[in-house]
Amino acid sequence: MIQTLEQISTIAEMRVHIKEARRQGKTIGMVPTMGYLHEGHLSLARAAKENCDVVVMSIFVNPLQFGPNEDFERYPRDIERDRELARSAGVDFLFTPEVSEMYPKPMLTNVSVSHVTELLCGKSRPGHFDGVATVVTKLFQIVQPDYAFFGQKDAQQVAVVSQMVADLSMPVQIVPCPIVREADGLAMSSRNVYLTPEEREEALVLSRSLKQAEAWLYEGVALRDIQERMIAMISEMPLAAIEYVEVLRYPDLVPVEQPTPGESIIVALAVRFGKTRLIDNLITSI
Amino acid sequence: MIQTLEQISTIAEMRVHIKEARRQGKTIGMVPTMGYLHEGHLSLARAAKENCDVVVMSIFVNPLQFGPNEDFERYPRDIERDRELARSAGVDFLFTPEVSEMYPKPMLTNVSVSHVTELLCGKSRPGHFDGVATVVTKLFQIVQPDYAFFGQKDAQQVAVVSQMVADLSMPVQIVPCPIVREADGLAMSSRNVYLTPEEREEALVLSRSLKQAEAWLYEGVALRDIQERMIAMISEMPLAAIEYVEVLRYPDLVPVEQPTPGESIIVALAVRFGKTRLIDNLITSI
Repeated sequence: MIQTLEQISTIAEMRVHIKEARRQGKTIGMVPTMGYLHEGHLSLARAAKENCDVVVMSIFVNPLQFGPNEDFERYPRDIERDRELARSAGVDFLFTPEVSEMYPKPMLTNVSVSHVTELLCGKSRPGHFDGVATVVTKLFQIVQPDYAFFGQKDAQQVAVVSQMVADLSMPVQIVPCPIVREADGLAMSSRNVYLTPEEREEALVLSRSLKQAEAWLYEGVALRDIQERMIAMISEMPLAAIEYVEVLRYPDLVPVEQPTPGESIIVALAVRFGKTRLIDNLITSI
Repeated sequence: MIQTLEQISTIAEMRVHIKEARRQGKTIGMVPTMGYLHEGHLSLARAAKENCDVVVMSIFVNPLQFGPNEDFERYPRDIERDRELARSAGVDFLFTPEVSEMYPKPMLTNVSVSHVTELLCGKSRPGHFDGVATVVTKLFQIVQPDYAFFGQKDAQQVAVVSQMVADLSMPVQIVPCPIVREADGLAMSSRNVYLTPEEREEALVLSRSLKQAEAWLYEGVALRDIQERMIAMISEMPLAAIEYVEVLRYPDLVPVEQPTPGESIIVALAVRFGKTRLIDNLITSI
């Protein structure tokens, strides 16, 4: 059977399809993205296809979650290519609203989540997670998914959205999916396209340092020492500018002295190579 | 036919009934309240019954919307009486969660609406409308109503919730319903029960001053003068302590010099009589 995909750009039209799917008793899986799809996104779509009757992927580069000096304007976009990739991954509806459709008037409503947004990207990108929580709430109201699939590369985003869904009793189950990596270990990201060959080469230190951190964790190295060793390791790269390297408890994202068995620990980092900001992380337990 | 009413105290049980109603293609009308029902609430329930297949009334005294020195603890409660009144007004499901059911853990998520919350009760009750927006969002996620009925006595609440619903594309239509008054003009409120006979008598000045304001408005009296005359009128009552008297454009709640024809104007006031804070308002256009 040929997989058909319908591209939808208005909220009203999206609602019609959702209503019909609901009427037929179908389960709806949602994959919210900012487009410029890579294998990470597609793995989410495939997971949705496996678990739900109808798969809705949204592509929306959300201005609310970009800071004034960030890359909203130059964020990579290629809707033709995305459409074909989404179709091949089993997406039924591709929701691609313009900014003017999502925010026809100034947004006066803000959804914010405290505590889990204090460190990591929440610290270095003030307002970012308000923008994420607000747009995800809005997308959930439009698409009304039973399941929503998020990549663990944005681990803090998963923590924030999960907290929000629990706090507000949203009728959706958040499904975190594993990070997808290039063959050489670089975590897939739409922003990888920005990297020069030299930066791309040096950026491999990120996944290497995480692998190393995991080994140190199992060896019982103190969390603070793991952080320091990683910073030293990444700093050896001439083009790397570290924004943060943190070892925290997951998913509440608070510092702990040492992990207790069974507790999840996240090793998370954000590092700039030239103009390009990359994030990566590892979640594990001892 | 005897009207049956089912009282439900858990989110999980509420969801089961909502899912079943949805499966049967029924429309859901919701009436969010804090209980201690009066004719105002019941008029909302009847409006819901007229327009929807299933009527859900929630009774939840929401701690998030009370300030530290407000009347959360002593807010009047009488669930037995409420149940009978709700039944008589056509309510199918009475959702009465405990605080521990709604907020089992510290709430880290906050929904806030700017601009329309700056004046009136938003000014005198900081954080109040964050609490309202947050709990209404949560109740909407649980009950998933097609229509939600709110009394215009809480006119700013209607403005805040309407703004939030529009901003976040919530799939619900807000239905504002007229203020219901006692025979002598006092706007119905659960808090009226606090009033001593003397306070109750003096409180009639509120609806009288609003009626007077309406006449002045039609006569073309300047908005600022209307405000001043009302303040003078209410101040004649020895037990009255004015919190605010404002004449603003509705529903964006901004000050204007003079109304333009067709523009809605709200005359709104909050006045304390002893320990009891009463609000009332009038929305009209010239």
